[in-house]
Amino acid sequence: MNNYPKHYCGIFGIKGQPKAAESVYRGLFALQHRGEESCGIVSCEPSAEKVSFYEHKGVGLVSQVISESVLRILKGSMAIGHNRYSTTGGTGLQNAQPLSILYKNGRIALAHNGNLTNTNALRTQLEQSGAVFLTTTDSEVMLHLIARSNGSIEEAILDMMDQVEGAYSLVIMTEDKLICVRDPHGFRPLSVGILNGAQIVSSETCAFDILGAHFVRDVEPGEIIVFKDGEIQTLKSRKKAPKSLCSFCGIYFAKPDSYLEGRDVYSLRIAMGKKLAEEHPSIQADMVIPMPDGGICAALGYSRATGFLYEPILIRNHYIGRSFIKPSQLERQIAANFKLNLIAGLVKGKRVVIIDDSIVRGVTSQARVKKFKEAGASWVGMLISCPPHKHRCPYGIDFPDREDLIANQLDLEGIRKTLGLDYLGYLSEAGLIEVLGDGHCLACFNGKYPAG
Amino acid sequence: MNNYPKHYCGIFGIKGQPKAAESVYRGLFALQHRGEESCGIVSCEPSAEKVSFYEHKGVGLVSQVISESVLRILKGSMAIGHNRYSTTGGTGLQNAQPLSILYKNGRIALAHNGNLTNTNALRTQLEQSGAVFLTTTDSEVMLHLIARSNGSIEEAILDMMDQVEGAYSLVIMTEDKLICVRDPHGFRPLSVGILNGAQIVSSETCAFDILGAHFVRDVEPGEIIVFKDGEIQTLKSRKKAPKSLCSFCGIYFAKPDSYLEGRDVYSLRIAMGKKLAEEHPSIQADMVIPMPDGGICAALGYSRATGFLYEPILIRNHYIGRSFIKPSQLERQIAANFKLNLIAGLVKGKRVVIIDDSIVRGVTSQARVKKFKEAGASWVGMLISCPPHKHRCPYGIDFPDREDLIANQLDLEGIRKTLGLDYLGYLSEAGLIEVLGDGHCLACFNGKYPAG
Amino acid sequence: MNNYPKHYCGIFGIKGQPKAAESVYRGLFALQHRGEESCGIVSCEPSAEKVSFYEHKGVGLVSQVISESVLRILKGSMAIGHNRYSTTGGTGLQNAQPLSILYKNGRIALAHNGNLTNTNALRTQLEQSGAVFLTTTDSEVMLHLIARSNGSIEEAILDMMDQVEGAYSLVIMTEDKLICVRDPHGFRPLSVGILNGAQIVSSETCAFDILGAHFVRDVEPGEIIVFKDGEIQTLKSRKKAPKSLCSFCGIYFAKPDSYLEGRDVYSLRIAMGKKLAEEHPSIQADMVIPMPDGGICAALGYSRATGFLYEPILIRNHYIGRSFIKPSQLERQIAANFKLNLIAGLVKGKRVVIIDDSIVRGVTSQARVKKFKEAGASWVGMLISCPPHKHRCPYGIDFPDREDLIANQLDLEGIRKTLGLDYLGYLSEAGLIEVLGDGHCLACFNGKYPAG
Amino acid sequence: MNNYPKHYCGIFGIKGQPKAAESVYRGLFALQHRGEESCGIVSCEPSAEKVSFYEHKGVGLVSQVISESVLRILKGSMAIGHNRYSTTGGTGLQNAQPLSILYKNGRIALAHNGNLTNTNALRTQLEQSGAVFLTTTDSEVMLHLIARSNGSIEEAILDMMDQVEGAYSLVIMTEDKLICVRDPHGFRPLSVGILNGAQIVSSETCAFDILGAHFVRDVEPGEIIVFKDGEIQTLKSRKKAPKSLCSFCGIYFAKPDSYLEGRDVYSLRIAMGKKLAEEHPSIQADMVIPMPDGGICAALGYSRATGFLYEPILIRNHYIGRSFIKPSQLERQIAANFKLNLIAGLVKGKRVVIIDDSIVRGVTSQARVKKFKEAGASWVGMLISCPPHKHRCPYGIDFPDREDLIANQLDLEGIRKTLGLDYLGYLSEAGLIEVLGDGHCLACFNGKYPAG
Repeated sequence: MNNYPKHYCGIFGIKGQPKAAESVYRGLFALQHRGEESCGIVSCEPSAEKVSFYEHKGVGLVSQVISESVLRILKGSMAIGHNRYSTTGGTGLQNAQPLSILYKNGRIALAHNGNLTNTNALRTQLEQSGAVFLTTTDSEVMLHLIARSNGSIEEAILDMMDQVEGAYSLVIMTEDKLICVRDPHGFRPLSVGILNGAQIVSSETCAFDILGAHFVRDVEPGEIIVFKDGEIQTLKSRKKAPKSLCSFCGIYFAKPDSYLEGRDVYSLRIAMGKKLAEEHPSIQADMVIPMPDGGICAALGYSRATGFLYEPILIRNHYIGRSFIKPSQLERQIAANFKLNLIAGLVKGKRVVIIDDSIVRGVTSQARVKKFKEAGASWVGMLISCPPHKHRCPYGIDFPDREDLIANQLDLEGIRKTLGLDYLGYLSEAGLIEVLGDGHCLACFNGKYPAG
Repeated sequence: MNNYPKHYCGIFGIKGQPKAAESVYRGLFALQHRGEESCGIVSCEPSAEKVSFYEHKGVGLVSQVISESVLRILKGSMAIGHNRYSTTGGTGLQNAQPLSILYKNGRIALAHNGNLTNTNALRTQLEQSGAVFLTTTDSEVMLHLIARSNGSIEEAILDMMDQVEGAYSLVIMTEDKLICVRDPHGFRPLSVGILNGAQIVSSETCAFDILGAHFVRDVEPGEIIVFKDGEIQTLKSRKKAPKSLCSFCGIYFAKPDSYLEGRDVYSLRIAMGKKLAEEHPSIQADMVIPMPDGGICAALGYSRATGFLYEPILIRNHYIGRSFIKPSQLERQIAANFKLNLIAGLVKGKRVVIIDDSIVRGVTSQARVKKFKEAGASWVGMLISCPPHKHRCPYGIDFPDREDLIANQLDLEGIRKTLGLDYLGYLSEAGLIEVLGDGHCLACFNGKYPAG
Repeated sequence: MNNYPKHYCGIFGIKGQPKAAESVYRGLFALQHRGEESCGIVSCEPSAEKVSFYEHKGVGLVSQVISESVLRILKGSMAIGHNRYSTTGGTGLQNAQPLSILYKNGRIALAHNGNLTNTNALRTQLEQSGAVFLTTTDSEVMLHLIARSNGSIEEAILDMMDQVEGAYSLVIMTEDKLICVRDPHGFRPLSVGILNGAQIVSSETCAFDILGAHFVRDVEPGEIIVFKDGEIQTLKSRKKAPKSLCSFCGIYFAKPDSYLEGRDVYSLRIAMGKKLAEEHPSIQADMVIPMPDGGICAALGYSRATGFLYEPILIRNHYIGRSFIKPSQLERQIAANFKLNLIAGLVKGKRVVIIDDSIVRGVTSQARVKKFKEAGASWVGMLISCPPHKHRCPYGIDFPDREDLIANQLDLEGIRKTLGLDYLGYLSEAGLIEVLGDGHCLACFNGKYPAG
Repeated sequence: MNNYPKHYCGIFGIKGQPKAAESVYRGLFALQHRGEESCGIVSCEPSAEKVSFYEHKGVGLVSQVISESVLRILKGSMAIGHNRYSTTGGTGLQNAQPLSILYKNGRIALAHNGNLTNTNALRTQLEQSGAVFLTTTDSEVMLHLIARSNGSIEEAILDMMDQVEGAYSLVIMTEDKLICVRDPHGFRPLSVGILNGAQIVSSETCAFDILGAHFVRDVEPGEIIVFKDGEIQTLKSRKKAPKSLCSFCGIYFAKPDSYLEGRDVYSLRIAMGKKLAEEHPSIQADMVIPMPDGGICAALGYSRATGFLYEPILIRNHYIGRSFIKPSQLERQIAANFKLNLIAGLVKGKRVVIIDDSIVRGVTSQARVKKFKEAGASWVGMLISCPPHKHRCPYGIDFPDREDLIANQLDLEGIRKTLGLDYLGYLSEAGLIEVLGDGHCLACFNGKYPAG
């Protein structure tokens, strides 16, 4: 699953750290895989007289958008940041986050990971009472709801949570507080860390490592944690809901060196590979070939369980996508065909099993299988480390429309034939739950939507 | 008056023209002298099913920000644009215009030239009722007021005009209308033109020439003109006020090839120079030297009236300010000292009169006078084509603070001595009115503020 | 004559000045009008142990190519620089100067203004004996000739001058000397200045002003001046030739604030305008209109001699050409049509005389005359401050091919009719000589080539 | 071995292919790992009347330097290209290749991979006879030698090969020929491929895959292959030498999907890992951890031979080095510390063996070992897939100076202690030869220099 459009984000915040923006830079760098389209940082320098917010957003990677001269402008000991990957094309800069506003209680900035499901209704309602929107993001809707509440910021966030539905992990910065929020289902991960007394919030724990910080705990679903000077305050949302952490986070999105609910993602995926071996015991093969990078861990697990040779011989070109923000037509063409180069000589006459993390449209997989056949593989199987993708995700994962999902159009045998495979197997839903544990959202596999 | 910070803007709109954004590009190019910091275009492609707004804004000159590939994205037959010159430093992009919003009646975009005087009060009032602001501009305040009104867009604009005070010429684009608005005082110019049936609105008439369009008429103070398909509708603001066109527009800001209230600016300035001769009859000189570019026309007029030789021997370096957006320290130094090079050999032993459009801080003028003295001029006089600047402008011209205005600190004799001049004369207020006619704002000279 | 391709260069050198490259930056900035395509600086930091040359060249204006971080790299107290304007298209960077080489006596860098006429013969000869060329410039040929000589650098330069023909003003930097050279005809200007003991060489004297330096004297035709530490040594070329300073330098290329052979260019052009009045006594007009910027001074002179009103009402747009290095198609179109905007209302029913510095192809002039007629001028005359251009220049001025020169195709009456004029007059060759004095190259007017 | 400066290059050429430059772009993209500093393409459009060479070079990655608009300029059916990685700092653009010259027989361009050992002597000799050098590259020396020969291009190349010593694989383009040359020792690889009749030359075979081309054969040491229209001509250098292919090419530089002398590099490295297991039989460990990317294949081979679990838990951040050409200080710091993130939880209480391709200075390795100890590994061993690096490489691999090579300062036990390891082992020279076969240069290990 290398080429389909993703819609995922990374959020990060820190309070109580000199040059906070520099720490956010590092944090966003570690979270870059969660969003490559645009990024931004808002910092806050609180003082007795006057609180200033400093802001910089841009289209591109963190290292392209945030230069050292920009960091010098982003003063203060508190800051939040955001990485964004979106499919909406030209609107890059307009919808970049964090979103920073002025309202009756001063300044507030917000970084959002997730997707609301009742945005349109809320928006219409707000517009009817005179609201003005400068972006098309659901994040701006949340800010309006907060701004219209009349209590403290904590109450305002609780009021907002009463009204919105869907997925949201938030890092919010006011003039004196850093606040992290996770929706009642806990669709998206969010963790708290600590670095010499500075408080940190991050979408994934791998960002703590880059700072030399320590993981403290996950933010609970429905929890609001408020950091103000030395104090930490914890609140719970009024709405309750069953925990529904996105299962695709463990399967695909998270970095292998991050921890989800206490377990490292690398080991989770090894376990998926082992489970695949258990569920597809009939296969006889000479080698297991991971589809980089998504299939590497599962392939290792599968190889360990079966004893088939682990052969990572689809060699990745590390320079794909490293030019300017807009790849040229020629580059895109090279990317499509030559991101992975097969060492063809090694598969001639061999039985091979390819391990991947998903099949979405099937087009890329089909092309890859063809290369193995042309190279003379005598038998080509493919195992996928999750169930078939059949449903759209309303919570922010940008799968294609249902009609473009191959598993929605064809049955297992149909997909196998279309891809030109000798064998095709998926991890079962039960198998996935066994590996990940309960409390996950499986809607894209089974269509059971926990919210909205 | 070459180096002090300006805060002025240019606005432009067109309806009924294929590739409207390209015409706006040309219009903004012609209005570039009104604002060099940032610019932007919003276009609209109306259709039966769906109306789309396309937007691009950036920091820099029109030719730097709006590339041909950007123009291809800005589709549609209606578009508005904005040039901005501001002193607010790093906030360039955030406050760039046009400002485009979504509200209960759909999309609306606005380009604003001028400055409101009751922004803070309006803003506080709006915030108390839950409003959220993404920029610090008074233009966003106007959009909120429009969005909260419950009538048609025309009524909403009238409602907004009831509440705001200060200077505003506006070009507003809705999904099917192009609307131009001038505040009841008419502080800023705004003219309507026509090009093969397409309707055009522009801050200055020189933008009509660049398009091959024809001037139709000025928008009246307090007038709202609505262009919708073939129809033109005219409304008048409920508030009435004495006409108060900014006198500095004629003295300094407008391009000489623009027309203000039916007269070309070139001739207005020639007349100021003649009036200077009339008011300062005692001077005997060998030559008249214009301070480029502001003093050229007045110097010509003065030369014609006195018979003193017109000698444009302060030679301008046309490359100053032509590098990247941020000039280097070295460049700024070169700009300060060598923008104008005096042909020193021509003034030795001569009596010279320098003509300029204003003295603000006096620092630059002092340095220039010194160069004439070093070059051996036997007598150096200076005449200014307007009265002394003593008061700040709340309507959008960014003069320095009062304490930095030399005419606020010193009397005529004091300024003359400080600048090292043998003679210093200003155009009188009466003289200026004789040239410009009645109905002008002279607040920066006499402190009589027509509004707010 | 605003739009035709120019091939002219500016050269500059300084020795004995800390941060020499910064001074060269300023000098090149002042000489920018002599070449906008590319530029470069080579500096030298001599020391007891090791001499280092530092170099930076690029395509674009000085302020675009040479940043402050580049200046920090260009260390040393001696440096030379070059501005280039060429028509050769994509080869910008390859042919940028100064050209810096390694040869048997160490390092040498050279900046060249002019054009050799026997390059091909010399090149073939050098190639036959094994020479390798990395550029197509005649400047590289000169370096080869110097490198093959066996004497001192002074003798090597004399040897080189024995062999080359055509136009060359040179600034040469060796590891311990700054050397300036002017060809025996003295086609291109070159002057020496002084700044607190530092030695300066520049194509035009206006660069001395920007540095606060003083003009010392012109380099003589055929002269070589060597600056080494405190000492100054002067040599004369073995070849002798009649002085032939390019007359077009005074007519068009030089900045008005530069001095040519002791006279400021501004006054030279005033004199040309006066001479025009003398030679065309029959004209009766209401106003004299300069074609900016080339015709301004001559128009002033003409106005003074005739008493006709000087009306600079072709208003220049100062933003033309200020975007990126490559103007877009749209920008080029705007440049062609709207670089100058006529204040049309002022010429209605008037008899106008336009003053320009030349007519090359006639296309631009024709378009401009048409605008005057459309604006209702009752009579339009045009006077040119030099004789008709009929011949190509082999010495480095990039006039179009002969067949494209309108004066080569048509007689005076023919040109007049083609341009749609009521009167057309040129300055006579005799008149030009009266103004400029003897010792000028007039080959582009009369076809008499002083060399080659 | 991730962070030390490399000096290696990739060269590529094609003849008989429309839009040849586009194919070179792809080829250079596939060879990008051989040099990231600068790159360039020279193309040739031969025609009856006139042969034109088109050239573009720049500092940065292929995808940054060569845009699609550049490719449109690089016309013709023959082209060569070059990737360069150098340590020489600011001289990037000046020394970029291919180098293109004019000489007595017309145009010639050359791309060079390798390093001559007698450059200085040849250069001095050439300079004494009047030669002029514009770069400091040994490649320019080769061009001078070719240009001074009097025979055909083939004879000229043979004459040049008589004089130069050291390492050189060359792709040369004349106006009608594509020529590939490998030095008599064959230090650097060079292979010939074919694509629908077009002839291709490449440093590595992985570039054939990206084009869909087929490998034909390696260029032999000392061989010259000339492609001219349909004909292929083969010559042998007059000097003979024992074959000495750089062993480090197989150990480290080549991409795993390239073939060296008929064997894929992936399998070569697997074999090195197996040989390590054979040579270090005493180790008992829980897991084998590859140092990405260099140690991956050897770790796999070692894991297979020992049965220790292959655990790739040093997770690479794929965004390191993906910003602009010049990384900021902050980015360099992040790169140094966080390019690889250890999943610390997995090594607690475990015995681990790290596999890497080399230890140069030892600094990076030391830091990495420390991380394992901090994470609680009970025993940390390290195996290196080649012998200790003790000697500098005069043929173009940019190892640090001898005094900076840790294996030159300390014995095995000393290195082990310095790195904080419980075990340290290298592959023996004999073991390496067993894997690679005879005919390899091992000078960096044993100091026996095959040439110069």
